[in-house]
This record gives sequence, C-alpha cells and structure tokens, in this order.
Amino acid sequence: MSAHGSFQPDEPAALFYIGQHDGRANVQASPDVLSLAYGLGYDFLTTPITTSAFHSRVVAQAKDLLPPTDTTCLPTLNPLTPQDSNLAPNEGNSALVGFVSAWIDLGSPNPVIAKLSQRVLNAEVAYAAFCGINTLIVHGPSAQANVVQYARDIREALALGPFVQLHILLPMTGELEHDYADSSPLAELVAESEVDLDDDDDLSRHTDLYGVWKDWNTIRTICSYSQKLSLALELPRQLPAPSLQRRWFSEPIRLLIYSRTSFLRNAKGYPVLSKQHQQLLSRFATLPSPPWLLLSDVDPLEDATSTTTTGQPTEPTPAEAASRSNEKPKDNAPHLRYLRHLQHTQPSRTAIERFGQGYEDFLQSPLQPLTDNLESITYEGFEKDPVKYEWYGRAIAAALKDLRKQIQGDRPVIVAVVGAGRGPLVTRALQASIQTGIKIQCWAVEKNPNAFLLLQRRNAIDDLWNNQVRVVKSDMRHWRGPTAAESTAPVDIFVSELLGSFGDNELSPECLDGVQHLLHPAHGVSIPQSYTAHITPLSSPRLYNDLLSRSGIEKWELPYVVMLHRYDYLCTQTNSEAEVVPDVKQTWAFSHPVPGDALEQSRGRAGGGLDTGGWAGGDGGNEHNARACKVSFTSREPGVCHGLAGYFETVLYAGNDSKIELSINPVTMPQKSRDMISWFPIFFPFKTPLYIPEESEIEVSMWRQTDDRSVWYEWIAEVYKKVRGGKRMIAVSELHSSRKNACLT
Amino acid sequence: MSAHGSFQPDEPAALFYIGQHDGRANVQASPDVLSLAYGLGYDFLTTPITTSAFHSRVVAQAKDLLPPTDTTCLPTLNPLTPQDSNLAPNEGNSALVGFVSAWIDLGSPNPVIAKLSQRVLNAEVAYAAFCGINTLIVHGPSAQANVVQYARDIREALALGPFVQLHILLPMTGELEHDYADSSPLAELVAESEVDLDDDDDLSRHTDLYGVWKDWNTIRTICSYSQKLSLALELPRQLPAPSLQRRWFSEPIRLLIYSRTSFLRNAKGYPVLSKQHQQLLSRFATLPSPPWLLLSDVDPLEDATSTTTTGQPTEPTPAEAASRSNEKPKDNAPHLRYLRHLQHTQPSRTAIERFGQGYEDFLQSPLQPLTDNLESITYEGFEKDPVKYEWYGRAIAAALKDLRKQIQGDRPVIVAVVGAGRGPLVTRALQASIQTGIKIQCWAVEKNPNAFLLLQRRNAIDDLWNNQVRVVKSDMRHWRGPTAAESTAPVDIFVSELLGSFGDNELSPECLDGVQHLLHPAHGVSIPQSYTAHITPLSSPRLYNDLLSRSGIEKWELPYVVMLHRYDYLCTQTNSEAEVVPDVKQTWAFSHPVPGDALEQSRGRAGGGLDTGGWAGGDGGNEHNARACKVSFTSREPGVCHGLAGYFETVLYAGNDSKIELSINPVTMPQKSRDMISWFPIFFPFKTPLYIPEESEIEVSMWRQTDDRSVWYEWIAEVYKKVRGGKRMIAVSELHSSRKNACLT
Repeated sequence: MSAHGSFQPDEPAALFYIGQHDGRANVQASPDVLSLAYGLGYDFLTTPITTSAFHSRVVAQAKDLLPPTDTTCLPTLNPLTPQDSNLAPNEGNSALVGFVSAWIDLGSPNPVIAKLSQRVLNAEVAYAAFCGINTLIVHGPSAQANVVQYARDIREALALGPFVQLHILLPMTGELEHDYADSSPLAELVAESEVDLDDDDDLSRHTDLYGVWKDWNTIRTICSYSQKLSLALELPRQLPAPSLQRRWFSEPIRLLIYSRTSFLRNAKGYPVLSKQHQQLLSRFATLPSPPWLLLSDVDPLEDATSTTTTGQPTEPTPAEAASRSNEKPKDNAPHLRYLRHLQHTQPSRTAIERFGQGYEDFLQSPLQPLTDNLESITYEGFEKDPVKYEWYGRAIAAALKDLRKQIQGDRPVIVAVVGAGRGPLVTRALQASIQTGIKIQCWAVEKNPNAFLLLQRRNAIDDLWNNQVRVVKSDMRHWRGPTAAESTAPVDIFVSELLGSFGDNELSPECLDGVQHLLHPAHGVSIPQSYTAHITPLSSPRLYNDLLSRSGIEKWELPYVVMLHRYDYLCTQTNSEAEVVPDVKQTWAFSHPVPGDALEQSRGRAGGGLDTGGWAGGDGGNEHNARACKVSFTSREPGVCHGLAGYFETVLYAGNDSKIELSINPVTMPQKSRDMISWFPIFFPFKTPLYIPEESEIEVSMWRQTDDRSVWYEWIAEVYKKVRGGKRMIAVSELHSSRKNACLT
Repeated sequence: MSAHGSFQPDEPAALFYIGQHDGRANVQASPDVLSLAYGLGYDFLTTPITTSAFHSRVVAQAKDLLPPTDTTCLPTLNPLTPQDSNLAPNEGNSALVGFVSAWIDLGSPNPVIAKLSQRVLNAEVAYAAFCGINTLIVHGPSAQANVVQYARDIREALALGPFVQLHILLPMTGELEHDYADSSPLAELVAESEVDLDDDDDLSRHTDLYGVWKDWNTIRTICSYSQKLSLALELPRQLPAPSLQRRWFSEPIRLLIYSRTSFLRNAKGYPVLSKQHQQLLSRFATLPSPPWLLLSDVDPLEDATSTTTTGQPTEPTPAEAASRSNEKPKDNAPHLRYLRHLQHTQPSRTAIERFGQGYEDFLQSPLQPLTDNLESITYEGFEKDPVKYEWYGRAIAAALKDLRKQIQGDRPVIVAVVGAGRGPLVTRALQASIQTGIKIQCWAVEKNPNAFLLLQRRNAIDDLWNNQVRVVKSDMRHWRGPTAAESTAPVDIFVSELLGSFGDNELSPECLDGVQHLLHPAHGVSIPQSYTAHITPLSSPRLYNDLLSRSGIEKWELPYVVMLHRYDYLCTQTNSEAEVVPDVKQTWAFSHPVPGDALEQSRGRAGGGLDTGGWAGGDGGNEHNARACKVSFTSREPGVCHGLAGYFETVLYAGNDSKIELSINPVTMPQKSRDMISWFPIFFPFKTPLYIPEESEIEVSMWRQTDDRSVWYEWIAEVYKKVRGGKRMIAVSELHSSRKNACLT
C-alpha cells in the first residue's frame, strides 16, 4: 500500500526572481535607480550599507593600531554618522538586498582586523535591519581565515534583528572568480610576514575540492543550522565535478550569483549559459522556492541612461527615435533577458515530479493502515499509479498460467485479494482471468467497513465484477477462508498490497502470516512473493532543519515518509553504464509463504502456551519476523550524515518464464518499475548530524524488533577510518528506537 | 577569592566491601554457604542464575539450529523451569551478586547464537531481578563480537527491572586472564570457518592497548551513559601502562576483580599484591563510593568445611583441636585476609584530599561575589588556606621594600585592601609592615555590609589592627579613595583577592579597573599584578553523567567549580623529570594596572559618549577586557572529551629579587603553591561528548565576551586528524555560551 497523500493539480511554470549587483564604490540603489531597474525587468537590487567615507575612516583606524602590541586595546568603532551611510528607511527597501562590506575580514588572524571587522559587520547588519533591509549578503571567510572565529561572529550577527537573513557569499570551490571588495580590503593591511600561518593549515582550498563546503559546514554547524542563515553561491565559469554540484544542491542556497565569467557568448555575441549551467539552473528551478538569481557586475544600470548631470534617463529626441526605429532596440540588460528566456523554456517535469509537487521534503508520518481506516481519497490517490496495478495484473496472469498446470481437474483457481480497499486488484485479477482464459473464483477481504460498502456496491454495478466477487468484511488475520457454502478449498493465490516505503513497515509480514493457514500447502502463491528493504546514508540539511524546528524529543525516534528532494547521497558507486548512482544496500528480506514450521511454532508460543516468558514484552509469537543487519558503506568525499534513506523492492511474482518486480530503490527502479508514483522513500533521522570525513566507512546497524503487540525499528551508525591493519572508529551516532511510536499489530 | 564551601571534619577510614566468586558449575550460594562466607569475613557472594541443566538444553537447542539456513527460524527460548534455576526469592539475596551465564555470546556473528544468547540474558536478568538480585555481572563482548549488537542487547536488558544494575565484565586490555565460562561456551559451537571475519576488523584487542576501552565506550554510549550500567574490571597480574590505568580510573567501575593470577606470593607463601596493585587499590579507595572487591576462584569456600554429605561444617574433635592448638589456625581465606590488611593500612590523605572530602566531582555553580554577599562561614573556609595568605604576606612585604626606594620623603606607604572580607589580607599587610619595618597607612574597602561590621569590630579589638585601619564600606569601583581628611594621596599598593578558579571569572578585571584611577600613576602596584587562565581537554564520564541526569538545557552552557576526582587528561606531555603531566595551555592574560590609555577610552565610551552604538548590547566600556584564543592539543590515545578543565595562575608580585606566584594549574602548582586549598578547578562542559580518535589534534577556541553589563564565556572544540600536507577535520562540538548565565558587572 502506498504511503502519501492526495494528488495535486499542475503548478504554474518556474518563476525566477532576478536582481542585479553593482560592486563599484559609491553606487547606491536610489529610488530612481530602482525604478530604472524595474523598468528593465529586474526584481531587486543589491545595495551597500556604508559609504567609502566609512571605509576610509575604518582603514585609518586600523592603520593606527597596527601592528598590535601587548598593550594594544582591541578597537571599538565609533557609531555611524550620516556620512557613513546613504541608507534610510524607505518603502522601496523591500526590493533591496544589503551587501555587507566585502572589505572586512572576520576571521583574520590579526586580532585588530578581526575585531574591527566584527564591529563593522554588527554596525551594518544592525543599521540595515533598522532600515527594513533584512536580506543581507556577507562575504565568506578568506582562505587563511579562522573559520570558527568567523562563524562565531556570524552567529552573533544573526541575533541582531528578528528578521535578519544572512547569506554567506561563497564559491563552489577554490576561490571566488570575482573580487567583491572594490578596494583596500582590511586584510591587505597585514603584511604577509605578520600572518602567523599555522604549519598544519587545513588542506588549502586550492587543493581540496570540498574545502569551501567544509568551511560552510563549520559555519552552519556553529550557527546551529539557523534558518536565518543560508548561502549566496557564486557560479564559476567552469562548473566543478557533478558530485560537488549535487552536494551544493542539498544545501540551503537562497542566491545564485552569475558574474560576467559565468556566461559564454553565442555566435551573435549574446551572453548565454553553457549546457551544464543550464542544467544546474533547471535543477534549482524545480525547488518549491527556487533561489534568487543575482547578476553581478554585468549590464551596469547607468548604461541604460544617457549621461546627464542629474543622472535622470533622457528621452530620445524625435530624430534619434526615428533613426533607431529601424534598428533593433538596444538591449541594456542582455544577461537578464537571457535568464528570462531560460525561465520560460524550462523542461517539463517527469511524472513523479509532477505528482510530488508540493510534497518535496515534506515529512509525513507513515500510514498505519492496520490500525487506521483510510479515506476514499487516499485510495484514489493510490489508484492513479500508472505502473503498479499494471504490474500486479501481469503478475496475477503469470501466476494463473503457472498454476493452471498444477491444479488438478477443472476447478477455478481461487484468488483472494486481502486488504482489497476499493478493489483495484480485484479488477486486475478479473482482467487477468479474461486475458489468460483461466477461470477464477475471486474473493475480496477488507476490514475497513467503509471501503467494504464500496466493494459491495462495485460488485453490483461494475460490469466486470458482475456480482461474481465474494466480498468479505474481515481483518484478514481472522478470516476463516472461503466458506463451506462455496467450498473449503484452500486459496491458490493471495494478492495483497500491504507494502510500505520500507517494505515491511506497514506490517505486511504480520498480516500475511495471518492468512497463510488458508493458502494451498503445496502450490499456494502469494503476490508479492518476497520483498526486501534497502538503505543508504543521506545528507539532508533541509530535513534535519525541519525536525530541529519541531518541538519534542520523540521526533528523532521514528521514520518518515518523504519525497526526498534537496539531499545528497553520501556513498556512491559507478554502475555498468558509467553512471554515478547511490550505493544502496539491502538490510533484510521477507518471503511468503513463510517456509517450514516457523508459523506453527509461533502459533504455539502466542498467548503463552510454550511462551518465552514475556521478555521484551513478547510471547515470541512474532519472533520469526524480527530482523537484524549490519551493512557497510564507503564515503570518498567528506560530508554530513543526517539519516538513512530507505527503499523497498518486491518480487510480485517470479514464475517459469517471468519475473515481475516493483522497486523504489533509485538504483533499480528505472529497470523494474519506472514512473511508479505510489511510494515516496522513507527516512530514518539521526538526532545529531554525523560528520563523515573523506575516505571513511559508515557501518549501519538496523533492527526490526517485535514484542508481538507491536513492531518497531532501531538504527545506529558508526564511522570508521581505514588504517593499516584494520579500521579505527571515528564516531558513533545514538541508538535510535521507534518503539514508543511502534506500529501496533 | 576562593570558590568552594565550608570545611568538613575528618571522614572515617576506607571500607572495602569484599566478595567471592566461584565459577565452577553447580556451586550455588545457598544460605548455608552464605553464612559460612560471612563467618570468614566476606561481605557478599556471587551466584549463578541458572543451572548446568539449563546450559545443556540451550546447547542442545543451538546444535539443532546450526548451521543456520535461509529458512532457519530465529530461536526463542522456552521459559525457565525449576530445573533451570536454583534461585528463589530469599532475604539473603541482598548479599548476592548475580553472575549472568558467561557461556553466552551476545555479539556473536552467528544469528542463532546471538539470538539465543539474547534470550538467555533476558531470561536471567528478569528472573534474578524478580528474586530481588539486582546487582548483576555480565561477561563483556568476545574478541570477534559485534559490539553494537552486544550493546543493543545490554540496553534492552537494562530496562527489564527498575533497580537492575549491570556490570560489564572486562579486562583492562587484551583478553581476560580468567575463563569465566566453566564449560561449553556457545561460541565454540560455531566452527571457525563459519565465522565471517570481516577483512577490516577493528584493530584486534591483541594489538590495540585501548581496544577494550573502545568497546566499553561504544557500549556505554549506546546505552546513553545509563547510571544502571557500570564495569566489573578484572585486574591482570601485570598492570598495563599508567595512562591506561588512569583511563579506567575515570570510568564507572563498581567491581574490581582479583583472581589468583593477580596475586604474588611473599616469602612465607602468603598471597600479596605487588606495589603497583597496591597503589591502584589505594587510588580507588579514595573514591567516595569505592568499588566492591571480588575475589574470583581463590580460597574455595568448601575448603573451609570438612567433607560431609550434608555439606555442613563439622566441629573438630577434641583430639584434633588439641593437636592444632599449637599450630597457627589454618586461614581458609588468605586472600581476603590480605585485602582486609590493606584496608586497614591505607595511606593517609593529602591536605587537599582531606579538605575536599565529600566534594569529589561535586559540581558547584561559581560564586558571584560581585552580586551576592558571602556568608561568614564562607570567608572562614577561605581563611584556612595554609599557603595563600602566607604568599600574599610575602608579596606585600616585597612590594613594600621595592616601593620604599621609590617613594619620596618619609610618608607611609598607602596600602588599600579592596574587597577586604573579614580582613585576613589586612592582617597580612600589617604584619608585612612590621616585618619590613616600613610604615603603612592601611585601608580596607568592603561592599558587604555584614563583613563591614565585622571589620569595624576587628579594628577595635584586634591588637594588631589597633584601630589604625581605615575601614570603608563601599563597592571598590565607587570608592573615592583616601578622603581629604587624611590625604588625597594616591594609593601605592592595592591588594585584592578577587580571583576565581579561572582567574578572571569573578570579574577581577572589571573590579580592579574601577579602582585604577586611585592608583599612583608612576609606581602604583596591584597585588596581584597579573593572572592567566589555562585549559586542558578532560574526560569525565562521571561529570557528564551528573549533568545528563539534571533537567533543563542551560546546564551545558555554564562552567562549574568542581574538585575533579574521577577523570582522565586526554592530552599529556612528559616534563623535565620524565613525569607524565597534563598538557595545560594558556588562554589569555590580564595585568594590573591596565597600561596606556585604554581605561580612559573606556570611560569615554561608557554611557554612550563616544559609544559604539550598542551592538551586542554594549557601549564598549568594557571592551578592553574581552579576550579570544585558539589553542591546540595533541591526543595520542583514543578517548572521549566531556569538557575542558580550567585553572588559573597569578603573579602576586614580581619585584626586583622575588616573584611570588599562586597556581592551581596542576603542572605548576607543586612548584608555585603546593598544598593550596582555596580553589578547585573549573569545568566547561560539552553538551555532546566528543570522540577523540588516536593521534588527533584538539583545537579549542574560547572567548571572554562582554557587553558592559555582564561577562560570559564561549567555548568550542574541533577535532582534527593530521594528514600529509595538512590536517583534516573529524568533528566539531557545539558552540557553548554562558551568556544566559553571565556574571553581572
């Protein structure tokens, strides 16, 4: 059974919010400039907060105090004067993004520079917020910066206003391609000889592909994943490795910065983006809230005006207008125009993307259809799946064909759909019977009294059902089987759709155990025949942040069904087509019918006959459905693990000449059941993000536990480093248990 | 000013609780045996929980199910029958320690063995608890065990009874010297070829000195540092490296196990312990609750009885008694006797150990003498220090001698004791004056109105004070100095004892800044002249567990004054005497008077004159007292960091030919101020224990922050791994801030 909500209508096309940044000194976003920008089609502008006069006086103050001596007092800053800032509260400020002075150096190893920079940051953030400009860009830490010091200052600045939002300006890797400090950065005041470079500096950004990402991770970790903190990511001309692009996609990026170097020129000389850039942009465009796009130092706004002393745009003279009328109008914002063009030509979404719109990264508690009765709209959602029921139909047909040879005589094959819902599998069974020409006696068992009513009605009015279906209202575990009035024949084929996103998490094993006694002992078939659960470690700051913001403690101790969107796989491999795919590993398996006399033993234990004394609360009646596993993954790049993504695969039926399977495992889904929409993945969170250094091993231990009354999961991960002669532990997560939120049997 | 409570009277001598373990099968601790043991002087016995009949049936069940196939049902256990256990509820059970069957293998890689072992553990723990035996020993994980699986089972077993206490039986390193499974451990049923040894097995315990400790750390971490979980540590004949011994001392050990091999034989053939063993035992004996001692498989109790069919001890015949009267009575428990001997011959405690009795690992909130008024009993406690006031006296004398040469004319040296309390420093100043023959005019400034009353009374009745002391009731920062009636001379020497365990944490800088304007600008001296703060990373499961059990979140965000007792230093070095000492590093320094015009600038800023706009809440008036630091430590062994231990050092006075210092830094305290009792260390906790792999670097960043109204600390640690070309981050702690518990200025 699928496990997500109802279907959404199509959403409107992508919408880009595009702004312009002019980093030259003394360029202020006055109301006139703003209205010019609007006219051109921009949505917002950046603005400096302070003036170059302010810059000069701070530089002078710094020079006074350098080099610092033992008695040098850490500097404080005189408060801002009107010469220091051209900002003032203004209605138009809502379209402005503040650009904190890029010439500061928060993580400077020089204490005078560091302290002055901190004062400037605080002054600018506080004043901008006072003026109603709460969206602010802050230059990231420099290459030699003390990132912890930097992060601490950011954390303090975040608290300077209730609506302050800081976006840290960073490159994807290495250095920024653009220099955002127009002149005289404070860092230059400190002679290289004075900078006390630690011999063991962290691997330089120049050589460490993930160096910038590590700095970001340190910053946001120290800021406790604050929702007021995000990224302004500068896109380089040459995009880095796809693995690093995917990593940035999983991070909270609210601004993408395109500079002149991001663009190519097409044959006509217009700026365009490379295919890789277009793909990256398209990926970000699929987000429910796509990042804003910032054009940096391209198409200066003043070029859109003729030069007048007042800076006002002038109307062309009639003669000028006439001579231009035959030319193409000069486009003063070709880069903007191009981005708008891309906005209107975004690729259409896949089936599951359309289906999941609105559900991206939306954490849902898994359904408990065993205890809860589902609503019709929920069933309706399931039934829209273009793949699942088709596959079930094929599986039933294949099973019928195989069984026909095994069944003596001419009797119909007895097919029982257990947990029939509104009856889609019954329909498929009837269709399979027609298609194969094999007669069946079809039963539909359903415990939900409301759905039961619908089944009865359907039986009466549906042409295909034609009152032939034996509809039974019963929990399948209590069903006595085809009644004596019909026959006491065992069921030949059980058909069920009891699977959750992790396979067994909606208690399919427990349910199917309950009907196994009605199954034909020699050739009885269960569709599905088997199912397996699979996991892979996941990085998702988005999901972690969501859970962090919720109240309570139990939130970490249960799995969620979620359409994963903004995430990154930590452990990957290359498949036979040289594609990079996640390393997804199997945890355990279930198959039906349960072989041997395991169920007999269980029945003996249940209720305390040969019971096991009630340890862990159980009599042992469900012990055979307990599972344990330990799986290892390798992570080449550094990362942070926020939990485990879970999937399932199932063999509906494997017959003499066919194998019909479903899968939501991203590695096998394309081959087994592409475009199937019925299941989102499942997510087992970690209460504390686990830092994974490069070249590490992640060992995940999981358990499916049961005490007969309920079923729950436990999960834990250890991080290891391979060393000569073995491996060495780096870290271990908490042991999580969903026992307090267990599924009741 | 010192920061701990009142003095305790001497505590009674060490008390050892000694028991006996007989691991042979079928030896039950019946009431008769128990009373025999009492007679011999034992305090408790261990007892198995099940019988060898039970063992046999479990082994048989295991053999049936091995080797496991795909369809093998995970076994459950039939409940215990009367043949399976000789235990029953009994008053005497309170003197019994249950010994869970050592033949199980909880972490077995074989799922049948693992599951059976788990069922046995649960059965035995549950039944023992039912019978009132809640103290239980569980054999630690085997060398090839899946420790996570083992830990998970222990965690579940802990919940089987509200008073259950599990003690994990482990060696200090390598393998146990003793075999506690009398026969047929389940592990032997699994042929070696079947055991799926991971190629990358964690460094074998045989080669990794800390291998067993790592297993323990994993177990207790997965059990969330449960207070119901502790250690039963087997002591080997040859004790391992002292560093490892210290590590085990910091862990929650509730049982020390001595086996036959732990003992040597002296010349007379009696069992004795080596010097190293005696030292280890003495160290554990200093704990407020020393561990119980367990003699394992020595001096079997039945030897104390003659062999009768009823097992009753028989009286010797008169003839036997007569012939034995000339012999020394045979001692049936020589090992026990020896331990009792040690109990009565424990070394006496040092001064600070006696002083701190009852305060070991007791977390106290630091004093806030600036806001609170201290009680007389608190002052009295301070004044008992045999070192501090002596040193102050010497410092004042040295300063007087140096100043005598600098002061023109014949006027007395003006000495002001600020924060005079009950006046001990005034007394020392007067004594120094007499001793040097230099006349002084002594002032005593105190804001505490209650102490002020005492000072006035003392001035009147004390022979030495003799009404000469000028007693002033005032906060020193508001004192106008020696009044016009006397003179308006500046103060020549300020004497204060405002230091906390971290030096500046009771706001000594802020206070002394407040009197600096009264100090002679040319030659004015402050005693102390300077002080420094120092830290080192600390492992203390004890303190972490204490904080964990408290309610609320803020508990992690403030430092505590605590007499550290059960801890381990994570970073050590070897000093010039080849002793291993902690690696303690300085964070920052303060000196008085504050040089230059820093205070002038501050005064200008305070109240908003040239103020800095109130960022971070401050006007900048106290900015010069802000501090920041980043210090690196190396950790060679693996460990867990629960926080930072903090100390201070101070130079009371450094004159022409003398330097008088105080220190609680364990590295320098023996030379600078041995036996000083006034200060316990300070402890900055980490909310989440930080795992430190071997050969790591720990970088600690700390800040002393101020917004003029208050002063607080921030602290964070990063763990790095040295790699070729640099270092690689492994983990980072949260950024902690005591701002919400700041000291108010």
